[in-house]
Amino acid sequence: MNAELVFVGTELLLGEILNTNAQYLSQQLAQLGVDVHHQVVVGDNAERLRAVLQQALGRADVVIACGGLGPTDDDLTREVAAAVTGRPLQLDQGLLRDLEAWFAVRGRRMTENNRRQCMVPAGATVLPNDRGTAPGLIIPAEGGKAVVLLPGPPGELQPMFAHHVVPYLTARNGGRPLRLVTRTLRFVGIGESALADRLKDLLAGQSDPTLATYSKTGEVHLRLATRAAGQEEGLARIAPVEAEIRARLGRYLYGVDDEDLAAVVGRLLTERGLTVATAESCTGGLVAKRITDVAGSSAYFRMAFVTYAAEAKVQFLGVPEALIAAHGVVSEPVARAMAQGALERAGVDVAVATTGVAGPGGGTPETPVGTVCFGLAARGAGALSPGVWAETVRLYGDREEVRERAAVHALALVRRYLLGLVP
Amino acid sequence: MNAELVFVGTELLLGEILNTNAQYLSQQLAQLGVDVHHQVVVGDNAERLRAVLQQALGRADVVIACGGLGPTDDDLTREVAAAVTGRPLQLDQGLLRDLEAWFAVRGRRMTENNRRQCMVPAGATVLPNDRGTAPGLIIPAEGGKAVVLLPGPPGELQPMFAHHVVPYLTARNGGRPLRLVTRTLRFVGIGESALADRLKDLLAGQSDPTLATYSKTGEVHLRLATRAAGQEEGLARIAPVEAEIRARLGRYLYGVDDEDLAAVVGRLLTERGLTVATAESCTGGLVAKRITDVAGSSAYFRMAFVTYAAEAKVQFLGVPEALIAAHGVVSEPVARAMAQGALERAGVDVAVATTGVAGPGGGTPETPVGTVCFGLAARGAGALSPGVWAETVRLYGDREEVRERAAVHALALVRRYLLGLVP
Repeated sequence: MNAELVFVGTELLLGEILNTNAQYLSQQLAQLGVDVHHQVVVGDNAERLRAVLQQALGRADVVIACGGLGPTDDDLTREVAAAVTGRPLQLDQGLLRDLEAWFAVRGRRMTENNRRQCMVPAGATVLPNDRGTAPGLIIPAEGGKAVVLLPGPPGELQPMFAHHVVPYLTARNGGRPLRLVTRTLRFVGIGESALADRLKDLLAGQSDPTLATYSKTGEVHLRLATRAAGQEEGLARIAPVEAEIRARLGRYLYGVDDEDLAAVVGRLLTERGLTVATAESCTGGLVAKRITDVAGSSAYFRMAFVTYAAEAKVQFLGVPEALIAAHGVVSEPVARAMAQGALERAGVDVAVATTGVAGPGGGTPETPVGTVCFGLAARGAGALSPGVWAETVRLYGDREEVRERAAVHALALVRRYLLGLVP
Repeated sequence: MNAELVFVGTELLLGEILNTNAQYLSQQLAQLGVDVHHQVVVGDNAERLRAVLQQALGRADVVIACGGLGPTDDDLTREVAAAVTGRPLQLDQGLLRDLEAWFAVRGRRMTENNRRQCMVPAGATVLPNDRGTAPGLIIPAEGGKAVVLLPGPPGELQPMFAHHVVPYLTARNGGRPLRLVTRTLRFVGIGESALADRLKDLLAGQSDPTLATYSKTGEVHLRLATRAAGQEEGLARIAPVEAEIRARLGRYLYGVDDEDLAAVVGRLLTERGLTVATAESCTGGLVAKRITDVAGSSAYFRMAFVTYAAEAKVQFLGVPEALIAAHGVVSEPVARAMAQGALERAGVDVAVATTGVAGPGGGTPETPVGTVCFGLAARGAGALSPGVWAETVRLYGDREEVRERAAVHALALVRRYLLGLVP
């Protein structure tokens, strides 16, 4: 089975948005063992879209077209795909009721435009959209082929693809695709080249599974991949290589696959029955945001003090003014005092603090842009010692990157403490 | 003049890399006034690449093909483009000398493979590569058309395009490129379909400038575009349409082009000499993070209280326990009390508060997932009244989207207050 990807939108041709859907869908299809020979981007133009869809149907079994399903007049994909497959559009009463309910719940008025989103080509399957108003469609075409229409926003496209298109493609393929089985090992606290150096022999001698490193902001991911009939067979082949990697770099390995660092910290806190607070200056709330990205984080996250101004550090965290005067706001003594203040005032078991120079301005020869001091204060519990610690790191990148790397480092510091790796 | 973009590489079809060249080249060509109607991605396969290049030459004046110029056997673009244009490859002695020098300088051995990179189709122009070993090529084709070959790595492609392809395209166009002049109007507090409804006549009757709407998380952007000899001429044509749109929807229009909502709020605070603090529950620090994304925000942002736990709202913001017991944590009275507490305790001029159900759990029939209450407290200044206000909104999407939309709404609420639109 092979598929062709068609992306519809003048904004793509003008370079106004980056086509991340192309990468997402290509990765997903590769994992399913579906070949893709062509990806085509075309604008909001009925004539050209029609020609592109016709050509795609001529050379692929399944055409997946993304974008142009919105409520406005330049959203043409539904109409053109219906014409190309020769299936007239019909108003779907069920969709109309759902959409009316969607607007009613939100106290918003449904406009005439939105009715277009309830038009369905005869014989097409409707794919529900949990995140927006545009449903997806699977439209049968001649010769057992099909055109799949998906909404353009990645937040709508991805769950729809995962929940509705993957089962459809798997069933088309006789239910037993030769899958790409992958396992991603996630590291923090070690750079990509240092990691590659420690795994030099494995990377050079790789064949099955294959190994590939990916640098993420503040993290490195290592993907092990193999083709197998099933998940179990694939993972069995990956296991011995993973064991060797863990033996060498286990200290930096915080999670696998989709595990997020904040979620891992949350799990460690929950297992130990501990609570956490943050005291943030340069990260400006980003550490708290990361922690509370995790559903259920209210069980262990109590409070964040985002003390951006120096006076706020004094007033709300009890950092002594003399300490700031003596060492400067970006210093280990201040980071320690911030963490200690958050621990006491929020009444938590562990507190982490950040103070640094995110840039672009504010750097000095002693504390250049990218310098971030971290503080950690803990009451101690079980085998974990009580204490207050600080460390300074020089991070690179622009303002946004420095802030993101600092948030990752703060989370990694809490993880290290909870695993008994601090001090 | 119009161009077609062809991207060559199986790694793109497998989703192993994100096609950032597509966005870069599209933006550059749009600015030069060169239309692009199609972008095509094809793998390292001679037969399919040949068909794609032939089709592209049939429908565009200039074909720009990226990637596949490397020294290895799967790099086919040079050979296939030579065949498609009917121009035999010849060894270029100058290139060979340059490449031998390049390797000598780096103390590396030149392999036989690298000689392939010195083969040039008869009559083609060589584009020097300052960053790598693969030169670019401009190959004349029938009917005055041309195929431009560029290396795939963005660090090589971008300088080569800027220094060699831009002058070539400008000269082709008679030396005076017709530029695309755009202006993006950014709205908050109104949905895409409601906006389209209010501008129905303008959207239906559009010709020059053209209008297009884009839905962003919590925002809508409207792009006005026209072709003109220069920026000034283009903006003069856009101005009367923009004025009409502002007359209808000015209340929702917060910025233009790259202006960010948090930056606009920062500018309004700075102009009025006011300071701000946040009291956040469901947004978990995201409002503070957005505010402090803006460099220089320390001038007006003092503090965020991320009071995730109910007790933290009582302890750090002085929300009366009885109020929480009577109305629930997600309620307008609690949002008001949070804002009031932040205003007093942080000693700022304006404070905004969020409390809601981000999901996936925690919803009830009375306060379903997506319900967010916002509080705003202000001391008043000049024409701005003092007071405490609250409002409730039902937001859609998953946890992340609800949180992001809530942060946008909180920033928009502060903007409305600073413009005298609250109450």
